[in-house]
Amino acid sequence: MTHRNYSWSEITKILRSGETKGKLTRDDLPTPALMLDLDDFEYNIDKMTRYLRSSNVAIRPHGKTHKCAEIAKVLIRAGAAGSCVAKLSEAEAFADNGVGGLLITTAVIGKHKIERAILLARNHPDTIFCVDDAQNVRDLDEAAGVSGVRLNLAIDLLVGERTGVGCGEPALVLARLIASLAHVTFAGIQAYAGQAAHVAEWEKRRRVSHEAMGKAVETRYLLEKHGINVAIVTGGSTGTYNIDAEINGVTELQPGSFIFMDLAYNSIAGNGSEAFHDFRNSLSVLTTVVSKRGSDTAVVDGGFKAFATDQPMVPVAKNMQGVRYNWGGDEHGILEAIKPSVTLDVGDRVEFMVPHCDPTVNLYDRIFCLRGDDVETVWPITARGMSQ
Amino acid sequence: MTHRNYSWSEITKILRSGETKGKLTRDDLPTPALMLDLDDFEYNIDKMTRYLRSSNVAIRPHGKTHKCAEIAKVLIRAGAAGSCVAKLSEAEAFADNGVGGLLITTAVIGKHKIERAILLARNHPDTIFCVDDAQNVRDLDEAAGVSGVRLNLAIDLLVGERTGVGCGEPALVLARLIASLAHVTFAGIQAYAGQAAHVAEWEKRRRVSHEAMGKAVETRYLLEKHGINVAIVTGGSTGTYNIDAEINGVTELQPGSFIFMDLAYNSIAGNGSEAFHDFRNSLSVLTTVVSKRGSDTAVVDGGFKAFATDQPMVPVAKNMQGVRYNWGGDEHGILEAIKPSVTLDVGDRVEFMVPHCDPTVNLYDRIFCLRGDDVETVWPITARGMSQ
Repeated sequence: MTHRNYSWSEITKILRSGETKGKLTRDDLPTPALMLDLDDFEYNIDKMTRYLRSSNVAIRPHGKTHKCAEIAKVLIRAGAAGSCVAKLSEAEAFADNGVGGLLITTAVIGKHKIERAILLARNHPDTIFCVDDAQNVRDLDEAAGVSGVRLNLAIDLLVGERTGVGCGEPALVLARLIASLAHVTFAGIQAYAGQAAHVAEWEKRRRVSHEAMGKAVETRYLLEKHGINVAIVTGGSTGTYNIDAEINGVTELQPGSFIFMDLAYNSIAGNGSEAFHDFRNSLSVLTTVVSKRGSDTAVVDGGFKAFATDQPMVPVAKNMQGVRYNWGGDEHGILEAIKPSVTLDVGDRVEFMVPHCDPTVNLYDRIFCLRGDDVETVWPITARGMSQ
Repeated sequence: MTHRNYSWSEITKILRSGETKGKLTRDDLPTPALMLDLDDFEYNIDKMTRYLRSSNVAIRPHGKTHKCAEIAKVLIRAGAAGSCVAKLSEAEAFADNGVGGLLITTAVIGKHKIERAILLARNHPDTIFCVDDAQNVRDLDEAAGVSGVRLNLAIDLLVGERTGVGCGEPALVLARLIASLAHVTFAGIQAYAGQAAHVAEWEKRRRVSHEAMGKAVETRYLLEKHGINVAIVTGGSTGTYNIDAEINGVTELQPGSFIFMDLAYNSIAGNGSEAFHDFRNSLSVLTTVVSKRGSDTAVVDGGFKAFATDQPMVPVAKNMQGVRYNWGGDEHGILEAIKPSVTLDVGDRVEFMVPHCDPTVNLYDRIFCLRGDDVETVWPITARGMSQ
């Protein structure tokens, strides 16, 4: 498509109408802009879902990565069992926008959030809530009883370094409590081994993940030995998808980043490859050079508010060699030309791959979805900022 | 005020009505929640504005810190000349919400943004735009001419490590260009010395800022010698407010963080004090313990999406000794009890001071404003995410 030279007031109208296809190109986007390359995004989904189908493992991708109801629905159409979400407010936003099969991976704590969980479960009875605390289980059961709904509870198992009840006996005690109560149903085991996801070396990553998920599977068999049916054992990450899928007893995976990829994941090894490029970098941030200093330094309009900064690496220019990004504060990035052949002028646009996809997406209200240079559609980041 | 034990549906109604005063307390807030202590906030504004009034220097606080039109209006009522903003889209959001006296500190680049700048200037003729590039000045002048508006242009001076035209002769050339064109007015000099703001030692900070702002003042006199009136010389930060206000020839300051404060600013020295506590920590993030591990580890519901991570320090509990926060990923923080006397249980709430205020505020859609424990009002973060 050729660029149509629209004015900003025309672009605004087109964006409001939602009918961008065949009209807008990347040159029309105000920067910094969050962009999704749809070809690469679809490649990633196809590759992951085909792999897991062949391994006979379900997928419920983690929606905390994209926070976008439209993306959750694309994934469900591609065969996902639903969507994981990190927080209750994310679940509410997804449910309100037509996403089913929700699994909330953080415990819902406190009477107000329990009240909201009941309301969610009333309208979306397949929602699964994670628990790791006996009092919380009793509180949920009591609220469910008063309201006449049932809640599906998965026990969050401590196989990592964050939350969860201990593997083995403590998990059995909690599962028995759930099984004994009248208004909650035992749904299975959630086992997230965050410490495995970014282990650089593949064989070591495999070992760490096997150790963690092995404990989850052992706990599964312990519960089943005691007559508790474990329908779901869910866990895993983009970094361990082809490790965890091979572990007997794991029933579904919850990777998130594979749809977008980021520099943190690119920096670890793949299975038999030095860098992890099983999936393509579909996510980027488009910036504009707003100032120039001498011949080798250009300043772009994206800083801490355009890229999440929790990872040690800096944004890397996409489709452009020979420039290095340095943080320039909240609003700016400072580009050094490290090859004299690179010339950047005020007004030039530079596209960057991001250090960490999840918290970067959470900075933006919308994502521009491109097919080549054409803006095929624009999706709202439905649950942006919903960390409650 | 005593806690009224509202249900969540009642709280939702009260939040929608906007009439929280005398009804909601901090216990009613869903976490993570961004909170403002109004007593401390008002103390900070009073202290800064009185200090600058006594120094006969104007203040146009930087709105990139708060992105909140209501806060900009509080500051203007306290005597501010208006509000600085980092980007055009922030300016538009502020202007649409009744904030005048805008100074946009990043150059407006590209035909679409220039079109928007013209529209903004038509409705808000006192808006000042920063420039550091001759072609950009000509583009702005041409667009202004076509539209029949005048644009006020301040030259952005390179006194730091980011953007701007060189001091002295290059600045004179650019100022003369502005003065020679028909549809733009020369408004003055913007000189932001970011490298001075967080210099730890006060005397060294003073030296660095004097050196930078001294060049700006010299440039001012050079321009005036050549018959160009320099109505404004603006710059400075919270870290240098009591340095820059004493420099002859600086007419106004643009600090932002003083209204909130953060751990990055607390970590530098004050004038005659080891830590910078000229202003109070009015900003915080309220979290809830969602999981517990053994007797000395508790997990709260705030991670990379609740706190900006661009500074080296971690969030610090407010009004609570003996716990240390460790990052626990996107959604969690892991609290270690470093004193055995500290006991935290699931459901307990922990309030944190933040490492860096500006990008933390940019994660939230609203800020809960407290008088003691009472939620006096709730302000939308009007320009959240508007980094364009």
